[in-house]
Amino acid sequence: MMKKSNDLSSEKKINGAEIICVGTELLMGHTLNTNSGYIAKQLAELGIPSFWQTVVGDNVERLSKQIKESAARSDLVILTGGLGPTTDDLTMETAAKAAGLPMVLHEESYKSLTGFFERIGRPMTENNMKQAILPTPAVIFQNTNGTAPGAMFDCPAPTASDPDHTARLILLPGPPSEIVPMFTLSVRPILQKLSPYTLRSVYVHLIGVGESAAETKIRDLIDAQVNPTIAPYAAEGECMFRVTQRIDSTEDPDLLSPVIDELKTRFGESIYEIGTRSMKEVVFDLLLESGKTISFAESCTSGMVSSELGDIPGASKVFSGAVVSYSNNIKTNVLGVPQSVLDTSGAVSEECAILMAEGCRRLMNTDIAVSITGIAGPDGGTEEKPVGLVYMAVADEAGTTVLPFQFHGNRMRIRRNATLQAFNMIRARLI
Amino acid sequence: MMKKSNDLSSEKKINGAEIICVGTELLMGHTLNTNSGYIAKQLAELGIPSFWQTVVGDNVERLSKQIKESAARSDLVILTGGLGPTTDDLTMETAAKAAGLPMVLHEESYKSLTGFFERIGRPMTENNMKQAILPTPAVIFQNTNGTAPGAMFDCPAPTASDPDHTARLILLPGPPSEIVPMFTLSVRPILQKLSPYTLRSVYVHLIGVGESAAETKIRDLIDAQVNPTIAPYAAEGECMFRVTQRIDSTEDPDLLSPVIDELKTRFGESIYEIGTRSMKEVVFDLLLESGKTISFAESCTSGMVSSELGDIPGASKVFSGAVVSYSNNIKTNVLGVPQSVLDTSGAVSEECAILMAEGCRRLMNTDIAVSITGIAGPDGGTEEKPVGLVYMAVADEAGTTVLPFQFHGNRMRIRRNATLQAFNMIRARLI
Repeated sequence: MMKKSNDLSSEKKINGAEIICVGTELLMGHTLNTNSGYIAKQLAELGIPSFWQTVVGDNVERLSKQIKESAARSDLVILTGGLGPTTDDLTMETAAKAAGLPMVLHEESYKSLTGFFERIGRPMTENNMKQAILPTPAVIFQNTNGTAPGAMFDCPAPTASDPDHTARLILLPGPPSEIVPMFTLSVRPILQKLSPYTLRSVYVHLIGVGESAAETKIRDLIDAQVNPTIAPYAAEGECMFRVTQRIDSTEDPDLLSPVIDELKTRFGESIYEIGTRSMKEVVFDLLLESGKTISFAESCTSGMVSSELGDIPGASKVFSGAVVSYSNNIKTNVLGVPQSVLDTSGAVSEECAILMAEGCRRLMNTDIAVSITGIAGPDGGTEEKPVGLVYMAVADEAGTTVLPFQFHGNRMRIRRNATLQAFNMIRARLI
Repeated sequence: MMKKSNDLSSEKKINGAEIICVGTELLMGHTLNTNSGYIAKQLAELGIPSFWQTVVGDNVERLSKQIKESAARSDLVILTGGLGPTTDDLTMETAAKAAGLPMVLHEESYKSLTGFFERIGRPMTENNMKQAILPTPAVIFQNTNGTAPGAMFDCPAPTASDPDHTARLILLPGPPSEIVPMFTLSVRPILQKLSPYTLRSVYVHLIGVGESAAETKIRDLIDAQVNPTIAPYAAEGECMFRVTQRIDSTEDPDLLSPVIDELKTRFGESIYEIGTRSMKEVVFDLLLESGKTISFAESCTSGMVSSELGDIPGASKVFSGAVVSYSNNIKTNVLGVPQSVLDTSGAVSEECAILMAEGCRRLMNTDIAVSITGIAGPDGGTEEKPVGLVYMAVADEAGTTVLPFQFHGNRMRIRRNATLQAFNMIRARLI
């Protein structure tokens, strides 16, 4: 009979997982721990329940104690960090010792390490060779973005109630740029088979509806939910529902579509995306589809709208340029807003927004131009025109639309919300 | 004699602390755990060593187990989260039970709760009243930003080696907007007295030097360090040293200044800040001091430089505006770059950068104008002009300087690094 503790091809379902992040820099608060959240989210999406997250420093005694404790109470323990080449990186040795496994030179990893150093033209130090010495038997994960391989092996952890208990340990590197590809390419496919069920999620993105208002509007659906479940999330200026169906077998019917349809009925055009695109990506795609070009006249957002759109690869296909008209003489001299409008209505006004958009459209020679003018604060507000008041206009060949907005919060929040709403105004014009 | 386990005015030094964050949303990866890092940093600054961070869900059994285990191995256990009014908020009861303390109505908290609901004009629910029922004896912390009070009490946790061991528990609310003021106002002053020593840190910010190059240049200082210590940190496009002196008594001499002076000697103008200002804040202050105005002609950064400067309150005092010249016809029509230059040298060239900066300075009528033109990728690169090649020019009354840069990484990284270097070029011109 095969020994239970090292049957790495076993497909025994995982009923409880936990995460251990190793690193003194986390304990000192120097580095924000994003790995715990990343792995936790992955486990949740895979349908693997996780009950603990722990951070310990690069300390053999405390780490060893933690591994033993975690292995005793969980079926799966994912460790991150401490796989580097230096002397304070000791996660691999410590975990191998806890599992009672020897460390030997892993030929394939050694070759891949020497190859890596040849490619970057730097000599390989003895330190680095340490990263090819790995526990056996184990499944080794290649690192596509660094030198430290990952590993998976079993750790016997007998408990009073289960003397045969064994936990699966998975060791991953600490840097997010290494852990994400390794998890995606190597770990996820393995865990998928070990999950007691799978989850299928669809994300419904809303704009202009607050989280609590959105939740109230579907309170009856949330209260009645069993499968699928509906979870609301708030982000800055927008909110999202995650609709998740638990799938136990491939024959399970699609229960997501009816819920999505119901959400469509209740929220209508407030839904800007069913999927994973951000607002600016939705707008970029709409512009591409319609073959239209765009430009911006930005005052209080000070280039943020342009910068966001410019962040999308290929933005130049639709985006011509922008004028950041921070001072009034740019509004007059470059965008052609008459001084008299600034004198009578002011720079933060319907009139000025309309003239900025129209002036920008002429100057940049684009199909659409959008203007944003407002008071980002903290100073500059008055009783009549408080901080957070923003006018936005969209000009195209059909004419110009202008809308007032009143945003709240600090300067950054007002600018971000204005940017999001500027994109939403373009979306409204294009759909 | 006062009972040891509840002498809350005791000033016994804390030699080991740990943090427990409570919340199923953290285990699911829905919420990024920023509280652990925040408290860890605070403890490090206070000179209190911390050895563990744990996340558990809103589950009485697991939380209770964790509190007992943590109390047994640490002198101080800080818990966050689970102090809300709903039924799944059970941190206070669970911790009180672990400490063997009764829960009673806390008059002052009750009054402050009723006052809170009167002020916001909403009826107080029975749920909320639960938040005024607190363990006794305990030190209660008022919440200036929400309804949940915090608490501090002692939890006896005898161990084999120390049968009298008692851990101090501190319970804080989960939302960052509540925990930060409560920690700052109420907890920090208490912990300051219980820290075995205090730490004083100075931050030295460098630009244009990689982390490993910077570290190599002061390897001898790092190897010899005892007090103060020097810790290098890398951020995108820049790096930082934290120089920290451990202070045991108020008579300790200033050991930081000689180290800072040595760093100044070794890094010279690569040091852009000794303190806490970011690069853009340093540039903003230099512009204010010199009374000069600035404008930007942005191509590959697409408004990011303008947006960053516009993020500073009062930016309008120095910042007039910008042209985002994403497409070539904006470069010619708005900035006045001759078509012949685009045809012969191309948009990404020294010549174009110079003409963009000079054209922008004329158009915007500012003392200084800065241009940025390059290839942000992922497409558009050639062998001669690869992705990441960026030209930047600074024009003022003394003339125009232009520099080539070769950045690496993805589109966002190239744009961010270009933005940082644009600010650095302005800094170089102003100092």
